[in-house]
Amino acid sequence: MDKSRYAKACCADRKAFGGGILEIQPKCRIETMDDLSTAYTPGVAEPCRRIHADPSLSFEYTIRRHTIAVISDGSAVLGLGNIGPMAALPVMEGKSVLFKQFGQVDAIPLVVDTQDVDELERFVRVVAPTFGGINLEDISAPRCVELTQRLQDLGIPVFHDDQDGTAIVTSAALQNALKVTRRSMDGLRIVINGAGAAGYAIARMLTERSPRPKEILLLDSKGVIHKERENLAFHKKQALELPGVVGMQADLAQAMEGADVFIGVSLANLVSQEMVRSMNPNPILFPMANPDPEILPEDAYEAGAALVGTGRSDYPNQINNVLAFPGIFRGALDARATRITRRMMLAAVDALAGMVMEPSRDRILPKPFEAGIGDRIAKAVREAWEQDEER
Amino acid sequence: MDKSRYAKACCADRKAFGGGILEIQPKCRIETMDDLSTAYTPGVAEPCRRIHADPSLSFEYTIRRHTIAVISDGSAVLGLGNIGPMAALPVMEGKSVLFKQFGQVDAIPLVVDTQDVDELERFVRVVAPTFGGINLEDISAPRCVELTQRLQDLGIPVFHDDQDGTAIVTSAALQNALKVTRRSMDGLRIVINGAGAAGYAIARMLTERSPRPKEILLLDSKGVIHKERENLAFHKKQALELPGVVGMQADLAQAMEGADVFIGVSLANLVSQEMVRSMNPNPILFPMANPDPEILPEDAYEAGAALVGTGRSDYPNQINNVLAFPGIFRGALDARATRITRRMMLAAVDALAGMVMEPSRDRILPKPFEAGIGDRIAKAVREAWEQDEER
Repeated sequence: MDKSRYAKACCADRKAFGGGILEIQPKCRIETMDDLSTAYTPGVAEPCRRIHADPSLSFEYTIRRHTIAVISDGSAVLGLGNIGPMAALPVMEGKSVLFKQFGQVDAIPLVVDTQDVDELERFVRVVAPTFGGINLEDISAPRCVELTQRLQDLGIPVFHDDQDGTAIVTSAALQNALKVTRRSMDGLRIVINGAGAAGYAIARMLTERSPRPKEILLLDSKGVIHKERENLAFHKKQALELPGVVGMQADLAQAMEGADVFIGVSLANLVSQEMVRSMNPNPILFPMANPDPEILPEDAYEAGAALVGTGRSDYPNQINNVLAFPGIFRGALDARATRITRRMMLAAVDALAGMVMEPSRDRILPKPFEAGIGDRIAKAVREAWEQDEER
Repeated sequence: MDKSRYAKACCADRKAFGGGILEIQPKCRIETMDDLSTAYTPGVAEPCRRIHADPSLSFEYTIRRHTIAVISDGSAVLGLGNIGPMAALPVMEGKSVLFKQFGQVDAIPLVVDTQDVDELERFVRVVAPTFGGINLEDISAPRCVELTQRLQDLGIPVFHDDQDGTAIVTSAALQNALKVTRRSMDGLRIVINGAGAAGYAIARMLTERSPRPKEILLLDSKGVIHKERENLAFHKKQALELPGVVGMQADLAQAMEGADVFIGVSLANLVSQEMVRSMNPNPILFPMANPDPEILPEDAYEAGAALVGTGRSDYPNQINNVLAFPGIFRGALDARATRITRRMMLAAVDALAGMVMEPSRDRILPKPFEAGIGDRIAKAVREAWEQDEER
């Protein structure tokens, strides 16, 4: 993968396009005084009056119908860490392009100059009347977990892609990987390395269905998390309450012994061939660290892996969030859902897994450019909302 | 003017376009995995790194270069009053369309669910890293005056169109009206009826140049403002400090006696023909209340007016903010100005007035669709920034 070529092209493009890769396009032309009177004053007073009388009409007369905000504080950007809001904006613009391209969702990037969770919450609440949904992005744990949970009462969907988007795509990948390797979830020990936003959300989602894994070990940089650990972050304590999540004193090498599945949302090169050899026979490995995985697929296969998926596009089985988030928001907006429920997320998992008719070792997920992915996920998500009795 | 036709067409359009009149358009196409790697990860890490090292590069690599926010709390929307953020969004979308059409400025509407001035200030500061400028819109006085003043240190231009946009276009109109009626500013008594955002800003701007008016009387619904009045709002006290602004106990009819100019930013039908007859000979009247003026032009002319301008497009001499704000922000963005200085505003006044080669009773301003207005104002504003020693 020629990273430096992409890096150069990315900078050159963004400069050449006159600054960034997005623009605002009017849907109407204003060419006469009549046009002006229709689009602006005095005509515009009428939709204002109607919305004032019936707020639900904001979804008919305004961009809320199809527009979300992509909000980041720049605290956990890609592999770059806490680079702040200004430097995070190129990522958010890219995300907006993907929302449009794969989901026909208009997404406005908003990078914000605060990392205080109370102020972030208030910011989202204050700006909410402009939007039909909020996608939180690249906000570090545990703040992102708390923030997302607090905002579920907002009245429009609030989704943190680094949590549940990753969990949805990983769950779909694992579902098909189990088919390929002819195993059932209920006998498995799963090691999740990385207890940030993604690791937490994957553990949560894997425990929400029946059958669920026998054991999940969730690790951060200090090893498996367990109740005796001091100063455990909010979301790690929550994770330990999940059914099947087991706490113990163990490092990564010890945790891998006898495991069936490794899911990595951590750092490059943390997994050795020796660790793979210590797993149960025919293990599944998803070393998803970006851009360099915890172990390279060729090394994992050599050490006995049955199936490997990564975050990279230059290997088979790319586990890429772009497969899910555009369709999820498209479906939620179409349904005018007030939240994205767990049921909607699980529907997205099944829809995504179901798009591969006959999963094989080198094909457990569709590729991003296959036709109709966003539409199919949108449909599943919309139907799940309509059928959800708890909504 | 067929208001109900515009009202119906406005609602119909906004529904037919799928909700509102704006969309986000990617400038790049993502059609291959290579495109994806360039626009998103891993390529996007590079502009992020560079901006992190040198924040000024955010104006090269991101939408800040050409994008502003149009922010409103919905507290003073058109003639509709305090209808709140959700109902204000159609106006802000329209404003965004005008920014693009007349200034090639990308403007993102943000309606916000707070009317607390401290919280509004904090909101703007928090969201600022996303934008190259902030246009405040339809926020009621005195909060808007205080908010705009507080935010001048933000590092990007913060402009409240209802204040200074209106003042710029009104000043240009008056400049040419004085030419037509062969008068000089220094002998004039000017009555400004309406002491909200616009009235305050017009008074301020008229006193900033030499020669300035002999007397300005600023009125709110209780009459001329003066120091003995109780509970006078912050910005009204500020107005009384301006040179030439005279306080006295008088109602509108009394203030009009012997005046040379009437500027109305108040309500329909407040000015009678009798009041016009009580003014000095050949008075100038700008009854700009929207959509119905303080006095209709035909009535003012019948009572002896020398020249009348209104806010309406179906009479000559429409005094319309759209003549100024797109070019002002275009010029400020082009210059990468950190504020919009008074000098830049006055340059915009002169540029706008200068676009009418030979002003006449029915033509003191260009019409919005005449070619090159935005460009000429942008150039004047950019040059004023470059020459401003106080910047």
